[in-house]
Amino acid sequence: MTPLFARLTIAGVGLIGGSLGRAARDAGLVGEVVGFGRSEQNLRVARERGLVDRVTRDPAEAVAGADAIVLAAPVGTCAALAEVFRPHAQAGAILTDAGSVKATLVAALERAWADVGPVVGAHPIAGSEASGAGAAQADLFRGRRCILTPTQRTDPQALRDIRTLWEAAGCIVLTMDPMLHDKVLGAVSHLPHAAAFALINALAEVQRDTPELDLLAYSGGGLRDTTRIAASSPEMWRDIFLWNRDNLVAQIEVFERHLQQLKRLIQSGDGPAIEQELDRAKRVREQLNR
Amino acid sequence: MTPLFARLTIAGVGLIGGSLGRAARDAGLVGEVVGFGRSEQNLRVARERGLVDRVTRDPAEAVAGADAIVLAAPVGTCAALAEVFRPHAQAGAILTDAGSVKATLVAALERAWADVGPVVGAHPIAGSEASGAGAAQADLFRGRRCILTPTQRTDPQALRDIRTLWEAAGCIVLTMDPMLHDKVLGAVSHLPHAAAFALINALAEVQRDTPELDLLAYSGGGLRDTTRIAASSPEMWRDIFLWNRDNLVAQIEVFERHLQQLKRLIQSGDGPAIEQELDRAKRVREQLNR
Repeated sequence: MTPLFARLTIAGVGLIGGSLGRAARDAGLVGEVVGFGRSEQNLRVARERGLVDRVTRDPAEAVAGADAIVLAAPVGTCAALAEVFRPHAQAGAILTDAGSVKATLVAALERAWADVGPVVGAHPIAGSEASGAGAAQADLFRGRRCILTPTQRTDPQALRDIRTLWEAAGCIVLTMDPMLHDKVLGAVSHLPHAAAFALINALAEVQRDTPELDLLAYSGGGLRDTTRIAASSPEMWRDIFLWNRDNLVAQIEVFERHLQQLKRLIQSGDGPAIEQELDRAKRVREQLNR
Repeated sequence: MTPLFARLTIAGVGLIGGSLGRAARDAGLVGEVVGFGRSEQNLRVARERGLVDRVTRDPAEAVAGADAIVLAAPVGTCAALAEVFRPHAQAGAILTDAGSVKATLVAALERAWADVGPVVGAHPIAGSEASGAGAAQADLFRGRRCILTPTQRTDPQALRDIRTLWEAAGCIVLTMDPMLHDKVLGAVSHLPHAAAFALINALAEVQRDTPELDLLAYSGGGLRDTTRIAASSPEMWRDIFLWNRDNLVAQIEVFERHLQQLKRLIQSGDGPAIEQELDRAKRVREQLNR
């Protein structure tokens, strides 16, 4: 069987990139997976765990002869890597990514890659607060959604190839307009992360102001769950926030209004209206469990 | 062996009250547990599951001859029940509760019970978004903290008895000033709940404004965890918010400031400052896992 890609380069062999490399190797879909990254230690872990066939920190060596290059780094790094790889990539090499923001990033990749080959935006929804090659696992994507965000410029064959790659990794693959993707993910992922980071920082301030509180000692499952995602990678989320800025700022403002509304009802002691707000939230939330 | 209480009345045989009844029965600590409540159906479930020995919807019958009465209802209902039970309670009957707010509630209970017997405020930290007798379980409290909040008026023997009750249920029992309790729980529990309710209502608004989004279909584990507690009982949380109003409003305002701060950094595109905020949150959050 001819492999889908004789050589696949994965730039960033962390949780997402490393898991994809291993899944593609296990599926027999690729001739060779080359892992590229900054950290020698992380690359060693990736190599030892069989996530990739070989590793390098040299951009030219990383993409030489690659049929496809997956950018699995923080969104801002993805855009920068496209520029770094461009002079070394072979003509026709597919450039794809795994970033959580699509519209601004795919546009940047298409500009950078215009003279090289096709670009396909992709976002596997399989993150967690864990990171690094040590956290990667072959079945990370099993049953998870992967959203491809083709534009008018996307090559149909490249789109099919990237779909095949993610399906082989176990994903349910969908396509979506990149702008719509960023609104949806802004709401269901980026806003909750912003809320969790801000909530933890607020609690730290309350703790600082009244040291006798020892908040951490009394926290229960509710706080742990609500803020689990605040342990996510600061570098990765800094980039997501910056690259989805317009959607996220607008959505934070919707959240601010609802929080202020609830606060006002509590201040004025309006029991029935508070209960109505909470009841509405409960009914929406319960739909998430279906 | 003489039981701790010949007759223990539990008003509200839901998750907390029902679990306590069952745990006290299993521990052989009580002669008889009487379950009081509004809902005939819930009382039947409590009886069938052996959470209590017998049930009644009549206040006089519920507290007649009881050595101790546990109020395990929404905080506002606890205060009202103390008034309802007062004319029917035997002299010296201990009144205690399991509410998530203490200062305002314990003061109300002490006023209502002044001519009857001792009052002991208690808060087992073992809630979840589940509720009702069907969710109760004997081991709910195993290893969980129960905070007793004695005041200057608290009878030492009654305090020891209530400590014995919760320790028999498996709790690690601590004592704390009621005002301090409400600050701590406001921060680690009430504020995260307020945030989760408001976040879900914000997402519902985003969804309403752009129906093509179908947010629920794309939500991942992050959103589910962050908002799990938004499925909690609206009636219970309405009362917690109202009875801990001053602490909660002040803490919501700290949260609002941190959220606004993060929003401004995103708006102005200040990458290093965003990363610093997220990094600070990550470090605090990781302490919760210890």
